[in-house]
Amino acid sequence: MAKSKEVTACLLIIGNEVLSGRTHDANLPYLGENLNKIGIRLAEARALPDVEAEICGAVDQCRRKFDYVFTTGGIGPTHDDITTACIAKVFGVPVVRNQEAVRRLTEYMKAKNLDPNDRALNEARLKMADIPEGATLIDNPVSAAPGFNIENVFVMAGVPPIMRGMFEGFKGRLKGGAVMRSHSMTAPVPEGRVAGPLTELQKRHPDVEIGSYPFKRENQFGATLVIRGTDPDEIAAAAEEMRRMIRELGVEPVNETTDDPTAG
Amino acid sequence: MAKSKEVTACLLIIGNEVLSGRTHDANLPYLGENLNKIGIRLAEARALPDVEAEICGAVDQCRRKFDYVFTTGGIGPTHDDITTACIAKVFGVPVVRNQEAVRRLTEYMKAKNLDPNDRALNEARLKMADIPEGATLIDNPVSAAPGFNIENVFVMAGVPPIMRGMFEGFKGRLKGGAVMRSHSMTAPVPEGRVAGPLTELQKRHPDVEIGSYPFKRENQFGATLVIRGTDPDEIAAAAEEMRRMIRELGVEPVNETTDDPTAG
Repeated sequence: MAKSKEVTACLLIIGNEVLSGRTHDANLPYLGENLNKIGIRLAEARALPDVEAEICGAVDQCRRKFDYVFTTGGIGPTHDDITTACIAKVFGVPVVRNQEAVRRLTEYMKAKNLDPNDRALNEARLKMADIPEGATLIDNPVSAAPGFNIENVFVMAGVPPIMRGMFEGFKGRLKGGAVMRSHSMTAPVPEGRVAGPLTELQKRHPDVEIGSYPFKRENQFGATLVIRGTDPDEIAAAAEEMRRMIRELGVEPVNETTDDPTAG
Repeated sequence: MAKSKEVTACLLIIGNEVLSGRTHDANLPYLGENLNKIGIRLAEARALPDVEAEICGAVDQCRRKFDYVFTTGGIGPTHDDITTACIAKVFGVPVVRNQEAVRRLTEYMKAKNLDPNDRALNEARLKMADIPEGATLIDNPVSAAPGFNIENVFVMAGVPPIMRGMFEGFKGRLKGGAVMRSHSMTAPVPEGRVAGPLTELQKRHPDVEIGSYPFKRENQFGATLVIRGTDPDEIAAAAEEMRRMIRELGVEPVNETTDDPTAG
């Protein structure tokens, strides 16, 4: 069902703490939703351990396969932060101390009301100013230490408010395609009853994607049916048939909502 | 830092709804934590769209690379549920109607206090009894429709309570290695101050993994430092040095916790 002009992205979530279950990733849903608003489809996401070969392998595979690759995590001051070194290795460039990044860190440390010990721009902190040669800095509006962009790869921090601040800052540079819109309604019947007619509906409307998400609330089964596509008229036509389909099962569709990510 | 006898797993989260941001996956942290309890390390996770080529490619790559592959999602009755067909394709076997699965679905539908329409074991519902030839059923204690296991691949539903019920049922069949234990403490200083000595500590204790997770609460910076390893004595030795290291920064370590996943 992939469109020919679709712009795709892959997210690489870097960090042992996500895989161990210690940290619950919140960046995937944020990026999935916010990339869609600018016409980019998050087509895959991977959570990877802090292991050089794994990170390098995934970055190299994904930068060739997708229009954009976003990474989160592993750009802090500690020994387990190895994302920058991995990205440099993939692109075959050295990591160099970036003077603009040093300046930003220096200014940030000075401005903070900190204990003199906490303010020192020590070697560990300066590591955050080491950037692959030729990369463009990504602004960090929260804690100064920048991310960076090299070719189609965008390297961000993993801490959600910092990641969001970085993404909001550079998203204007990304080139998206058609924006996916959606329309959803709930059929208050078990998914197994709606599945047959839904398959027929999908066949009649191959240019939209129809998803079905079953639930059970207070002993009432239901399925949320979602129509996604780039053409509002196609979506409206499929929605009209979907309403009829649900009524033919002897129930009324409920909770209809239209999501136009380009609005507001 | 990978151990030679480590048992590894990969999780494939199947479904457009996770990538669009509509559904927040809760299965990754659950499996990361609960696999570790039986000595299996979740070494990668991927969120994939409902696209046959993508699912087949990832399953085939990951079943060769990891000891176990777990999939969640895409085994329901609707047209967008294509996981079963993909797995069969990867293993080169046909999908056949499994009579034991039919029996379970029939019994479940009969037992439920449902409208006669909702109770019908129609074609869509029977699709959930179609299983790759030669696969072993995975019990579904919630809603009957089974998952299945073929070689090192375990196929589960995506709805979290069903996934958990399935996993709890078959986890006794998995063969784990050494269980990762952990010990953590908080250094109430900015991560940048602890990073240098922490690197030295990691070098002196190569058989444990030391992670650092920075935070800021009520204007107080801190870093949660986590020591992970299979040998409790190694962990205790690293923890003792870590306490000393934090005290040398002029502060006391706080919130010490030991996690022994084999206990309780």
